[in-house]
Amino acid sequence: MRTRPLKVALLGCGVVGSEVARIMTTHAEDLAARVGAPVELAGVAVRRPSKVREGIDPALITTDATALVKRGDIDVVVEVIGGIEPARGLITTAFEHGASVVSANKALLSQDGAALHAAAEQHGVDLYYEAAVAGAIPLIRPLRESLAGDKVNRVLGIVNGTTNFILDKMDTTGAGYQEALDEATALGYAEADPTADVEGFDAAAKAAILAGIAFHSRVRLDDVYREGMTEVTAADFASAKQMGCTIKLLAICERAADGESVTARVHPAMIPLSHPLASVRGAYNAVFVEADAAGQLMFYGPGAGGSPTASAVLGDLVAVCRNKLAESTGPGESAYAQLPVSPMGDVVTRYHISLDVADKPGVLAQVATVFAEHGVSIDTVRQQGKDGEASLVVVTHRASDASLSGTVEALRNLDTVRGVASIMRVEGE
Amino acid sequence: MRTRPLKVALLGCGVVGSEVARIMTTHAEDLAARVGAPVELAGVAVRRPSKVREGIDPALITTDATALVKRGDIDVVVEVIGGIEPARGLITTAFEHGASVVSANKALLSQDGAALHAAAEQHGVDLYYEAAVAGAIPLIRPLRESLAGDKVNRVLGIVNGTTNFILDKMDTTGAGYQEALDEATALGYAEADPTADVEGFDAAAKAAILAGIAFHSRVRLDDVYREGMTEVTAADFASAKQMGCTIKLLAICERAADGESVTARVHPAMIPLSHPLASVRGAYNAVFVEADAAGQLMFYGPGAGGSPTASAVLGDLVAVCRNKLAESTGPGESAYAQLPVSPMGDVVTRYHISLDVADKPGVLAQVATVFAEHGVSIDTVRQQGKDGEASLVVVTHRASDASLSGTVEALRNLDTVRGVASIMRVEGE
Ligand SMILES: NC(=O)c1ccc[n+]([C@@H]2O[C@H](COP(=O)([O-])OP(=O)(O)OC[C@H]3O[C@@H](n4cnc5c(N)ncnc54)[C@H](OP(=O)(O)O)[C@@H]3O)[C@@H](O)[C@H]2O)c1
Ligand SMILES: NC(=O)c1ccc[n+]([C@@H]2O[C@H](COP(=O)([O-])OP(=O)(O)OC[C@H]3O[C@@H](n4cnc5c(N)ncnc54)[C@H](OP(=O)(O)O)[C@@H]3O)[C@@H](O)[C@H]2O)c1
Repeated sequence: MRTRPLKVALLGCGVVGSEVARIMTTHAEDLAARVGAPVELAGVAVRRPSKVREGIDPALITTDATALVKRGDIDVVVEVIGGIEPARGLITTAFEHGASVVSANKALLSQDGAALHAAAEQHGVDLYYEAAVAGAIPLIRPLRESLAGDKVNRVLGIVNGTTNFILDKMDTTGAGYQEALDEATALGYAEADPTADVEGFDAAAKAAILAGIAFHSRVRLDDVYREGMTEVTAADFASAKQMGCTIKLLAICERAADGESVTARVHPAMIPLSHPLASVRGAYNAVFVEADAAGQLMFYGPGAGGSPTASAVLGDLVAVCRNKLAESTGPGESAYAQLPVSPMGDVVTRYHISLDVADKPGVLAQVATVFAEHGVSIDTVRQQGKDGEASLVVVTHRASDASLSGTVEALRNLDTVRGVASIMRVEGE
Repeated sequence: MRTRPLKVALLGCGVVGSEVARIMTTHAEDLAARVGAPVELAGVAVRRPSKVREGIDPALITTDATALVKRGDIDVVVEVIGGIEPARGLITTAFEHGASVVSANKALLSQDGAALHAAAEQHGVDLYYEAAVAGAIPLIRPLRESLAGDKVNRVLGIVNGTTNFILDKMDTTGAGYQEALDEATALGYAEADPTADVEGFDAAAKAAILAGIAFHSRVRLDDVYREGMTEVTAADFASAKQMGCTIKLLAICERAADGESVTARVHPAMIPLSHPLASVRGAYNAVFVEADAAGQLMFYGPGAGGSPTASAVLGDLVAVCRNKLAESTGPGESAYAQLPVSPMGDVVTRYHISLDVADKPGVLAQVATVFAEHGVSIDTVRQQGKDGEASLVVVTHRASDASLSGTVEALRNLDTVRGVASIMRVEGE
């Protein structure tokens, strides 16, 4: 074993960073044995230098992250600050100074992944980010390496623990969205401003990263269709139950049937109770991967939290340190397939539509005609009426999102349709 | 991209090998893009040269595997013959001639893994074997790389599809063992001689490989305690149901509570229906991994079959080819922790014991005394009696396997105990 240590600069020492530092300290001997050289925490950049940080030598703390990265003796930079800047600038500076980077930053990777990968390659260093998607669950490495000889056709997953906690609560207790959100906030599963989670931005960033890797193409956050889950109601769950389904916020990345393009989207969807994703409880994450030869694989585990996320960061840290010692690098960006990302209108799936209609003869015929005119074939219709008011629940066969949108627009123009109460996609069948 | 191809020798072209060859041919462009150089099938060794092999150039076929491996221009040898010899000799020869090896051979790896790893390291080449455990499911790579910065405490899994198919059938249809086995055989899920599967040898080989990697120690097939599932009865399933459990053949690798030793075992066990492994149907495999920082992870997918296994082989092939191009090697054997493997008697778990007893007063007191004398504390007792005969079902708290064996021996010596109908461990709680 080499005795000269590999030096690590830790940028950020919050929820994730403090756990990274703790494990690096308490498991130093194991890390050294696994890497083949001691791994030393050489500096820790934070915003508030005076904050007490248990187990961390105060001499390591600095507020000048840039100077730390530029020191010249740093082998690996671990970026767990989050957000676009200063993280992006610091990572680029790290590359310029010959350091490899391990990051947990989904926001940055889903926006600037291609440029960052190019910079890493240019400087002959590594950029690893297993922790950016689904916390502790190994996903990036299995997609990038284990399935490197296979053809991935679909990635379907629950990649946000906050929204899964909320939806699971709504499902099991009958609570409304606000009540479930309040409980998630009280228990620390939702942040004070839950927008990034409940509006699907966090899941969309992860979908972009997963799609890019799975399809060997470039998929950016902007390419991902996104719908949040704030409008899911207790009534939606009741409808889902009648269909033998539950509702999950899903990230779905698909290769088109002709293989010439891909789609990536995040939205609430009904999935059958028999689907393994239906039984993913609380804040857990789980991701299904469908590949030509491998068939259906599922990866399940804690999708966030300081220590699970740190586990993923440390796995990357060991890999990147080994590469440094071997003077090599791991697999970089693989975007050779250059598949374009199709718009949401091209996505083909099934739909569950709930309409408020006038309770009089001929309404069903009118509605059915509109579906037929737009080429959307109906699987089942359920009609419930009382006091001149009625509701009509239509479940369609597979149709493009564009046809469905056209159908819904036309339905809204029917005199007999008072309103479209909800539209939800049906997945995982 | 380099234009000179990497040359691959395929040893064996059966269920797995023929799929490896097929994918190498049909996905040649993708493989080249992912590796960074064309990957060429340079020769295929088989036993029966005259057999028609669709899609394979007959000029590539040879019966002289040794000559193929010694050719001098082979970069990677893919060994999918199986068994100890000639596979072992061929792999060693491959190393001596500078070739890296990808293998799916659990029998060989669980017996001679250490020696083979040492030989690979000596010659500066790779030995990869993701396909040896649980087919397409990425497990070796996640354990070896993703969790390299974490401390794994437990691996608990269904790693044999044949036995899971049989047990699932018994559970869902009430069939007996023989009937379920016959169906598995008819459907091609069990081989003509099912011994390796139903007696747990196959699962034990996988447990040895998983334990070695998870605990950074050496665990050989001989170190694994093994009980098959041929004696599981419909009555056992009925008892399991009464406890809210089902029965699975599990491979369990554990770090002892004091961290100073490990155990590895394969046996049928009751697990609660609420445990995710309980709902693993048919021939699927699934493995739970518990680690200090990551928490509980689960990996699920098809555990065997030509094309899923080929997917794992090809993932390794891409990795090994990349390493060849980079003139580096991936992580080798990591056995630095050198934890000893404790005997089965040291394993601590819970037990479900079914006794046939005389239906007379005082029997329960006698039986309870025997448990107490051996330090095995009873959780619940259920008594059923008719016509002077009775059965007593005892579920214990956690106790060592040695104490339980002592208890059972003493119970057999009681006049009032007519027989011990079944003993089953209870896991996953
Ligand atoms: N938390 C999770 O469960 C989780 C899961 C997966 C991925 N991630 C990702 O991990 C990253 C970190 O998340 P987190 O939850 O650990 O965040 P956090 O708790 O808010 O910690 C951020 C850390 O960065 C430091 N920091 C902020 N601005 C800085 C600056 N300009 N210069 C130097 N240091 C600065 C903060 O310093 P102070 O301590 O002085 O405030 C703090 O230590 C994010 O990219 C996040 O998306 C988090
Ligand atoms: N099948 C699965 O689902 C599965 C799953 C995981 C791992 N594995 C592992 O993969 C390996 C291969 O399994 P398999 O199911 O593909 O076996 P298989 O169908 O029996 O194929 C074995 C192949 O090896 C060839 N062979 C046998 N002896 C040979 C020799 N002395 N020299 C050259 N070639 C020889 C056979 O030639 P002929 O074609 O001429 O008979 C045949 O092509 C085993 O280690 C197995 O444990 C299999």
